[in-house]
Amino acid sequence: MTTLNLDALFAPRSIVLVGASERPGSVGSVLARNLMDGGFTGELMFVHPRGGEIHGRTACASIGDLPTPPDLAVIATPAPAIPGLVAELGAAGCRAAIIISAGFEDSDPATAGLRRDLLEAARRSQIRLVGPNCLGVLSPGHGVNASFAREAAPAGDLALIAQSGAVAAAALDWAPAHGLGFSHVVTLGDSLDVDIGDLLEQLADDPSTRAILLYVESLRDAPKFMRAARRAALAKPVIAIKGGRSAAGAKAAFSHTGALAGADAVYEAAFRRAGVLQVESLDAFLDAAATFSRTAADPARTLAILTNGGGAGVLAVDALERHGGALAQLSPDTVARLATIAPAHWSRGNPVDILGDAQPAVFGRALETLMAAPEADAVLILNCPTAVADSTVAAEAVIAAVRAADRGKPVFTSWIGETSQAEARRRFAAAAIPTFPTPESAVRGFAQLTRVEALQAQLRAAPADDGPAVDVRAARAIVGRALAEGRTALTPPEVSVLLSAYGIPALPARIVATPKEAGEAAADFAGPVALKILSRDISHKSDVGGVQLHLSGREATAAAAQAMLATVARLRPEAAVEGFLVQPMIVRPKAQEILAGLVRDPTFGPVVMVGHGGVAVEVLADRVLGLAPLDLALARDMIGRTRVSRLLAGYRDRPPADLDALAAVLVALGRLAVDLPEVAELDLNPVLCDETGALAVDARVAVRSPGSPPL
Amino acid sequence: MTTLNLDALFAPRSIVLVGASERPGSVGSVLARNLMDGGFTGELMFVHPRGGEIHGRTACASIGDLPTPPDLAVIATPAPAIPGLVAELGAAGCRAAIIISAGFEDSDPATAGLRRDLLEAARRSQIRLVGPNCLGVLSPGHGVNASFAREAAPAGDLALIAQSGAVAAAALDWAPAHGLGFSHVVTLGDSLDVDIGDLLEQLADDPSTRAILLYVESLRDAPKFMRAARRAALAKPVIAIKGGRSAAGAKAAFSHTGALAGADAVYEAAFRRAGVLQVESLDAFLDAAATFSRTAADPARTLAILTNGGGAGVLAVDALERHGGALAQLSPDTVARLATIAPAHWSRGNPVDILGDAQPAVFGRALETLMAAPEADAVLILNCPTAVADSTVAAEAVIAAVRAADRGKPVFTSWIGETSQAEARRRFAAAAIPTFPTPESAVRGFAQLTRVEALQAQLRAAPADDGPAVDVRAARAIVGRALAEGRTALTPPEVSVLLSAYGIPALPARIVATPKEAGEAAADFAGPVALKILSRDISHKSDVGGVQLHLSGREATAAAAQAMLATVARLRPEAAVEGFLVQPMIVRPKAQEILAGLVRDPTFGPVVMVGHGGVAVEVLADRVLGLAPLDLALARDMIGRTRVSRLLAGYRDRPPADLDALAAVLVALGRLAVDLPEVAELDLNPVLCDETGALAVDARVAVRSPGSPPL
Repeated sequence: MTTLNLDALFAPRSIVLVGASERPGSVGSVLARNLMDGGFTGELMFVHPRGGEIHGRTACASIGDLPTPPDLAVIATPAPAIPGLVAELGAAGCRAAIIISAGFEDSDPATAGLRRDLLEAARRSQIRLVGPNCLGVLSPGHGVNASFAREAAPAGDLALIAQSGAVAAAALDWAPAHGLGFSHVVTLGDSLDVDIGDLLEQLADDPSTRAILLYVESLRDAPKFMRAARRAALAKPVIAIKGGRSAAGAKAAFSHTGALAGADAVYEAAFRRAGVLQVESLDAFLDAAATFSRTAADPARTLAILTNGGGAGVLAVDALERHGGALAQLSPDTVARLATIAPAHWSRGNPVDILGDAQPAVFGRALETLMAAPEADAVLILNCPTAVADSTVAAEAVIAAVRAADRGKPVFTSWIGETSQAEARRRFAAAAIPTFPTPESAVRGFAQLTRVEALQAQLRAAPADDGPAVDVRAARAIVGRALAEGRTALTPPEVSVLLSAYGIPALPARIVATPKEAGEAAADFAGPVALKILSRDISHKSDVGGVQLHLSGREATAAAAQAMLATVARLRPEAAVEGFLVQPMIVRPKAQEILAGLVRDPTFGPVVMVGHGGVAVEVLADRVLGLAPLDLALARDMIGRTRVSRLLAGYRDRPPADLDALAAVLVALGRLAVDLPEVAELDLNPVLCDETGALAVDARVAVRSPGSPPL
Repeated sequence: MTTLNLDALFAPRSIVLVGASERPGSVGSVLARNLMDGGFTGELMFVHPRGGEIHGRTACASIGDLPTPPDLAVIATPAPAIPGLVAELGAAGCRAAIIISAGFEDSDPATAGLRRDLLEAARRSQIRLVGPNCLGVLSPGHGVNASFAREAAPAGDLALIAQSGAVAAAALDWAPAHGLGFSHVVTLGDSLDVDIGDLLEQLADDPSTRAILLYVESLRDAPKFMRAARRAALAKPVIAIKGGRSAAGAKAAFSHTGALAGADAVYEAAFRRAGVLQVESLDAFLDAAATFSRTAADPARTLAILTNGGGAGVLAVDALERHGGALAQLSPDTVARLATIAPAHWSRGNPVDILGDAQPAVFGRALETLMAAPEADAVLILNCPTAVADSTVAAEAVIAAVRAADRGKPVFTSWIGETSQAEARRRFAAAAIPTFPTPESAVRGFAQLTRVEALQAQLRAAPADDGPAVDVRAARAIVGRALAEGRTALTPPEVSVLLSAYGIPALPARIVATPKEAGEAAADFAGPVALKILSRDISHKSDVGGVQLHLSGREATAAAAQAMLATVARLRPEAAVEGFLVQPMIVRPKAQEILAGLVRDPTFGPVVMVGHGGVAVEVLADRVLGLAPLDLALARDMIGRTRVSRLLAGYRDRPPADLDALAAVLVALGRLAVDLPEVAELDLNPVLCDETGALAVDARVAVRSPGSPPL
């Protein structure tokens, strides 16, 4: 497949609309009008089987009649004819087509096979397709409005890629009122050909795009997405909102796009790894658009707050602490300067409360001081309406102070209210200063700035080759033998070899067939042992009395094994018992039980997980995922995001656990996941973590032949 | 003190402004204009020492010259004269005064003592005071605008009580643009006299108030607040936003109002107990105002979503799941009806996606069907702008369908975007249908409705007398003796008696002085014992080797005690050792360690807590607080909100713990807290909880004489 040509899609020299119409309210008519009104300066042609005039332009009866080869085609005719049209367009020299029409369902007998025909026609003709079933594409800077959106996008520096025409339409409708515009807006519809990855790759280098917004429901080509998203996120902020995060939402998304929205936690891990800022809600998404259209990502750590209302300052500080941000500690010098500006009863600290009767000039002069104060990385200015000072004039004083500042630092504003504040908001928008309706949303904007900077810093860090020295050959042999024998799980001794090949510290294990042999194995280990039943039919051994701990010596162990056989026979009479596992008893009473493992996601592939371990993992639900492979920095970051990490950090008489040892286990799991695609699932639970290191005590490894269906 | 007379404050027959002015931009001038423009039909008088005309009205030179006794005085003169003015006003028959002026700081030598003088003058004159240092009071329905707010409040059915003039000013500025109005707005300033409790008590019965909004930074008279808030919340929704929730925010609030904002978790417990809906952010606060001005609290459980945009529906479903709400499962009958209305490719389920080209009439007819569907308790309608259908006409169709519906059910709308949607939002506001800028905020509105209903249901439930049969006399004797001996902690045997007096199951304990006696005690108990060091100097015994478990028999126990003495002497040579505690060893390996206890909050008094127990309680930070006393229903609700409750519910081979036994412990603690104010703090950690019950294994009780300073 040819690489998508950005020019043909976003900056065509000629466009043909196939299916132009004059019928009021029809999609073909709205498309024709939007194309004509978009300011396109190249050649715009209409095709309609009956020819004639459409909206005052001569329409060609067929593609063969076109006077000029079209760079871009927009197609709004009924679906069945479209594969043929695409072939004709290819012959006429067309390079990209936007299929607005729906009606390509394979589940409908009338249209079954049409998707395949369309894709084949496009590939043979070397035409890239957007859609089908989409709202279209807008590139206002190039005069292209190839959409049936209600609002034309004003030109600007945001790119929007949406797997929902509705979300794109809402954003287009919202933007002009906030002084924002777009470089390119692409709605993807069914993403039969062009997908988010293709577009990210192109937009990464697009100088007219300052930030990229994504509405994502599901991804198909995850490697392409990850590659393109990382590249784009290194160059500019990429902000995503994910639809279908909840189980019910995923079902709704499936009914919406026919694609099953993926496991939410894996998407979250993927966005994070790719350096994409994921936001929670549509208002956070739109606010982020406004912020990043005006402000670059910034390593700002400390925030100074200037306010004429104490309560507004308090709410901002609460929000700042929720987001983990820090209030700037004003220097004595700054406080002294502010004291010469502010009224007598000002707050003498941060928030800088200049009180309700503060005149506009006080806003301006106090802001000048804060812009010059090195201890404040960013400034938030809050205004509550008062009868004694004009909010709009205060906004102008702020705008002037921002413009005059020697040292640019991020500035956020919130003129709280509506009636007296709307004009100030318009002026901030016109002056390209981020403005928000409430103190909390302004603080969220500040937090997003810092967060994007942290994500980019992670992308800029060269990945360290932190992997262990591994014996891939030994590992492959173990896994290959299990598969050759038709097994889907490794035996405990095989697991031991596998973990040791990847340098993962694990408890030694002996497998025995009878209670008598169990007693002998116990005698061989110095000290007490743990005894576990071996049965493929029993996955949770402790639930059926299949685990006995602290057994000392030959007799006690043999007796316990005998008793265990009886209990298991009673509770699970159908289970085939293969023998026993004997392991030295590990007594690390102050160690924390951790879960570490790997799973494979159908979209994103191998995923490493870490969290609170033990028997209650499902209930605790404390897991953090990371895409494999990992380096130590990424692994430490994952550990830091678990709740159990607070316990690992030590408390009371527990020294901090050796987090590097645990991180090394995660890195090894990531390497193993990449090396051995046959390992479908691997669970280490518990990994005992304390100050002496990390030790895997129990492990389960599921294998499957590559290409076989997922477990 | 006399009860606040609502009429004098909110519906005065005559008002005097003391400190009226014509100086442009002065507070006295804005107050005069606001009072004149408010539509007040009673007698409005101005006082200014120079007399003359102010804004065209004759001003009296002194209060003695007033032609009519003023019901209400508004005072904006410099602080030092105000106590005298209040005395004069009292003599003139005034019953309430709003002190706008600031300048009553006791920390300023020039004004020290002025607060006291003011309060005394008011009490002697039987005048109730609002303020000082406030924005004023508005009662638009009575033509009263006794404030220097920029925007006059339109009359309406919301009451707002704010400990921040800025937040009130912002709300006043915001409301008219959203078609909302106020019955009463009171800003409290320093709350020297009238406080939130007073106002809630009055507004509970005010027929012109449909919902009450509170901005709270700190409360002083908690019992009054709780009483009044419960009464008000039973009658109408009470929504609160708390400023100063974070540590930094509390500090900012202190600098703002001079009152230390209280422990956030205790406020949260208090609001919940009082039936007050606490919201997180200013936009949730304002959205709630809009919702409850138009819709009553409702036990709605299931939501139907009608949308013309798939992506918008997906985002709404995600938000619904985050809030714990449920999608209505449409009946076959409803689906069949919708199928006759919706276009061919509609979603055939909930969300009801009628697709982007849905005409307004389809919105109306589909909504009629959903309003009639018994399986949907409430309906959310989403609209994304499209070029083929007019959003405003669609809004009108929705408004008509809501009006025509036989069966009222809560309806929420979100017309997403701005340019094409603003008019529809205005029409929804005019039609009193809640409308929100995003799907997520609309779903939050639905969740608030349900939440308020649940809070009210809790208030309506008669509190059960679930308390244990207690022996208060025995408990008092124990505590009294400890205090008489000048101790601040109970000894373990005293703790045993105290817990037993309140029916709290606890492990027996023997105190011994020497290792030899420890051995004897161990011999007396059947089975293994636990041995703990006894020392007032050591609060965390296990940190210094002061706990030994699983000791069997006389010799082992005596030897362990001897060794313990040596270890403690080495690690904590300064600690005085009083002896040992010997307890039967409890082996409940599958029991969960729970923390239960009581503390006393300086504002709200006795507070019961429950959460994850064990040695890592500080790190786990899993605690839920409830104000004492409790009944079993409240105690169960508290347990249900801990994270550890997921473990108590049972998993794998662990049967569910006996939650009623744990709830009974909490109820007993609440009773103890109320009966024995001398018990300053009580910690049960751990309480072992399993299917056989709850057993306190270790306990600490701190006592102090009532009236002594907090620990």
